[in-house]
Amino acid sequence: MSSLQDVNPTVRSIRATTSLQGLAACVTEEIARGAKKPFQQVIDVSSGDPHRAGMAPMSFVRQVLAACIYPELLKDKSLPLDAIQRAQTLLGACSGGSVGSYSVTPPGIPYILKSVAEFIMRRDGGVNSNPEDIIFSSGSQKALSLVLHLMASGQGETRTGVLTPMPCPHTLPTLLDMSGVTLVPYQLTEERGWAVDLDELHRALKTAQGRCSPRAIYISNPGNPTGHVQDRKSIETVISFAATEGLVLLTEEVYQDSVYGKGRDFISYKRVLSEMGKDYSETVELVSLHSISSACMGECGLRGAYIEVINMEPAVMKYLREMHASSSPPVLSQLALEVMVNPPTPGDPSYKTYSQEILHSLTTLSHNAQRACEFLNVLPGMNCQPAMGGVFLYPRLHLPPQMVEEAQMLGVEADVLYCQRLLEEEGVCLGAGCENGQESPNYHIRLCVLAPPDTLEEMLARLSSFHLRLLDRFP
Amino acid sequence: MSSLQDVNPTVRSIRATTSLQGLAACVTEEIARGAKKPFQQVIDVSSGDPHRAGMAPMSFVRQVLAACIYPELLKDKSLPLDAIQRAQTLLGACSGGSVGSYSVTPPGIPYILKSVAEFIMRRDGGVNSNPEDIIFSSGSQKALSLVLHLMASGQGETRTGVLTPMPCPHTLPTLLDMSGVTLVPYQLTEERGWAVDLDELHRALKTAQGRCSPRAIYISNPGNPTGHVQDRKSIETVISFAATEGLVLLTEEVYQDSVYGKGRDFISYKRVLSEMGKDYSETVELVSLHSISSACMGECGLRGAYIEVINMEPAVMKYLREMHASSSPPVLSQLALEVMVNPPTPGDPSYKTYSQEILHSLTTLSHNAQRACEFLNVLPGMNCQPAMGGVFLYPRLHLPPQMVEEAQMLGVEADVLYCQRLLEEEGVCLGAGCENGQESPNYHIRLCVLAPPDTLEEMLARLSSFHLRLLDRFP
Repeated sequence: MSSLQDVNPTVRSIRATTSLQGLAACVTEEIARGAKKPFQQVIDVSSGDPHRAGMAPMSFVRQVLAACIYPELLKDKSLPLDAIQRAQTLLGACSGGSVGSYSVTPPGIPYILKSVAEFIMRRDGGVNSNPEDIIFSSGSQKALSLVLHLMASGQGETRTGVLTPMPCPHTLPTLLDMSGVTLVPYQLTEERGWAVDLDELHRALKTAQGRCSPRAIYISNPGNPTGHVQDRKSIETVISFAATEGLVLLTEEVYQDSVYGKGRDFISYKRVLSEMGKDYSETVELVSLHSISSACMGECGLRGAYIEVINMEPAVMKYLREMHASSSPPVLSQLALEVMVNPPTPGDPSYKTYSQEILHSLTTLSHNAQRACEFLNVLPGMNCQPAMGGVFLYPRLHLPPQMVEEAQMLGVEADVLYCQRLLEEEGVCLGAGCENGQESPNYHIRLCVLAPPDTLEEMLARLSSFHLRLLDRFP
Repeated sequence: MSSLQDVNPTVRSIRATTSLQGLAACVTEEIARGAKKPFQQVIDVSSGDPHRAGMAPMSFVRQVLAACIYPELLKDKSLPLDAIQRAQTLLGACSGGSVGSYSVTPPGIPYILKSVAEFIMRRDGGVNSNPEDIIFSSGSQKALSLVLHLMASGQGETRTGVLTPMPCPHTLPTLLDMSGVTLVPYQLTEERGWAVDLDELHRALKTAQGRCSPRAIYISNPGNPTGHVQDRKSIETVISFAATEGLVLLTEEVYQDSVYGKGRDFISYKRVLSEMGKDYSETVELVSLHSISSACMGECGLRGAYIEVINMEPAVMKYLREMHASSSPPVLSQLALEVMVNPPTPGDPSYKTYSQEILHSLTTLSHNAQRACEFLNVLPGMNCQPAMGGVFLYPRLHLPPQMVEEAQMLGVEADVLYCQRLLEEEGVCLGAGCENGQESPNYHIRLCVLAPPDTLEEMLARLSSFHLRLLDRFP
């Protein structure tokens, strides 16, 4: 070791990233040390982290987990009876009856694998789901990195490529770099609400010729950060394309619980695939991701996700399981996953509270998304597509040329400079569009709108004040 | 994708592993379905998982975590005051005051990074520890895989090699394979209680010539699975060797809280390094691992660990941080880590209970290790080195030649066959020595002795009964 040249070349190829959250942490620390700022605290809406923004967790989830952690609480009369019973059932599924033991089997606790498969079947109108196709992990990033690591091979034109939407989730480009696969960008159509376009998929595939060998296509639906939700026809188009081109479908469906666009419902890729007939349903490889970091649960800190893997060759699936065997996922996140896929039902003591909390979360999200979109579209030089689902808005910035030049001189992307200034002047931490893979002069900002309405209003007011001042500065 | 030949060659090179735990799960399911067996349940002591074996968690840890998970409990008068206060402090360190948020910064929650650095300084008699050298992860395996991934480079004789003790932790060989580095075995000296031998280190290094380029040496101290605890002189020898040969020290010190050998204390590699003078303390690269899965905490299911990284070039450390940035470690495991490094002190309401529980755990461990070692040494064809620390015993098996032949015919290692039969006939799940990298005809079994004494006795009785029957079968 001891020098840079011994570092894994794949690691050395990881793209440089901006650290707006690092800057936000510094500003917060300055305030704690007594520095005078025009704001009292930083509002960070750069990532999909509802609890950080002040949303409350689901009570039932936390009650069940607390009783599992500290079983003395099973005798506590203040907890609802169904929370106690659920905790008893889940503890019964843990080795030695403790959340402190490793999972019984590497992919996850068998009882919960079964719960998840049953949830998927209910969700998809009865399409079969097999617990043996499901693997738990400590977050959807981790699950995805396993699959990417499995697929990474070749060099030069045989190197594995992954068709990747632009914009994409902001953690994805680094993950692809780290996994040693090549990012092949396909542009989503902003003016049509960030829809997927078939011609663009073909164009993107062509650009890969001689550069790498595309083996998968990544889809984020509901879209992170676009808020687009695909209809059935659009999903069929992508599946046909993947089938024809022999691509694995990597579908990130983390925000499936948060679709609020009028007349738009979440339909899973798996369901559409199974309804397209055997030529598709028995051949196209599909990896679907879901997570407890989703909108309504918002349990990002617990680190829990699952993948369902369809049509993968058994010998390949075996490697995936072996790779995963050394990384037992956190037990508490598996328990939270079980509650997510198997919530209280009518008649249960916790049903009313749970339903109200979910409804509150969804209503807040939907109102906020609409309110923020309208607000942003009134600002000069800002243009926001309405979202139909997920937790983000991704408005376009038309920046003054002088600011773009200033950014070039400083050696940063102009949208990063915009976000840095906003953070310093107004204490609002947004995401810069370049983190989502967007290239200059195509500037955007990313903001999570799942926050208490007061926080959202405060954030919008600060953003507007900064933005208008900026335009004044560069008239 | 769609076929094996597209699988990452590194993944394809992962060695085949036996799945005794998989078999144990099958046997348990058969019993649940009503199958008649000569035992009522499987005793699984194959891994260091104290809660699975029936050890109780530390109450204070669980009280703090429960209150953090479900803050309504902060008003609960039945919880000790210091648990409530600790929970309040820790929640204050979480973004948005919720364990459901991502860590504030990627390496971990700053408050807890600081707690860990202070613990290390106290442990090492004041040797400086910097929170910026510490990174949290979801388990020591995950932390190690990050470091290995960073170091993996080259091909053929330039491929990164890691000097690896034989026997080594049973999860290590697969992890090295997956990370794309070459395992260079060095034998520990069984007849001297599995001590490290300098000549053997030199011999091992020589064997690597032309095969790979050794860049690190892995040490497990207290030894997993050997139970050996190095003295200061032995540690100095290894450090000098690493310094001379330019190797990074990868020291797994997970069982530092459980040394019970007479006259033997745990001394950290970092402390010895810092006391060897500037030629060593300012140059030798050291990565030290510790975990909440350690003996007394035993919180394997929460998935929490840290690494402290010393003397790594800043530019290389930057890559390590970037790789880690996409994988925020579980927040609850960080909170548990804080309690582990900062337990109740005299005068705190929970001090007495906490100390008693720790003492109980250590006393049980120490008695069990001695009891089991004596018991096993009385059995014919079994030879066990006494352990000085950690949770495992690793006795040698002298198997009848007929059984070795039978295993060869069945295409399994003889120690695996031994363990399979033991599991089927007596419902005891041990680890097979070959999982720890030991090669035939060098047969061993691995057993975790941190279990309630009743469970240990029952396990030993079943093992003895099986073992004697086996020797009768092959006289």
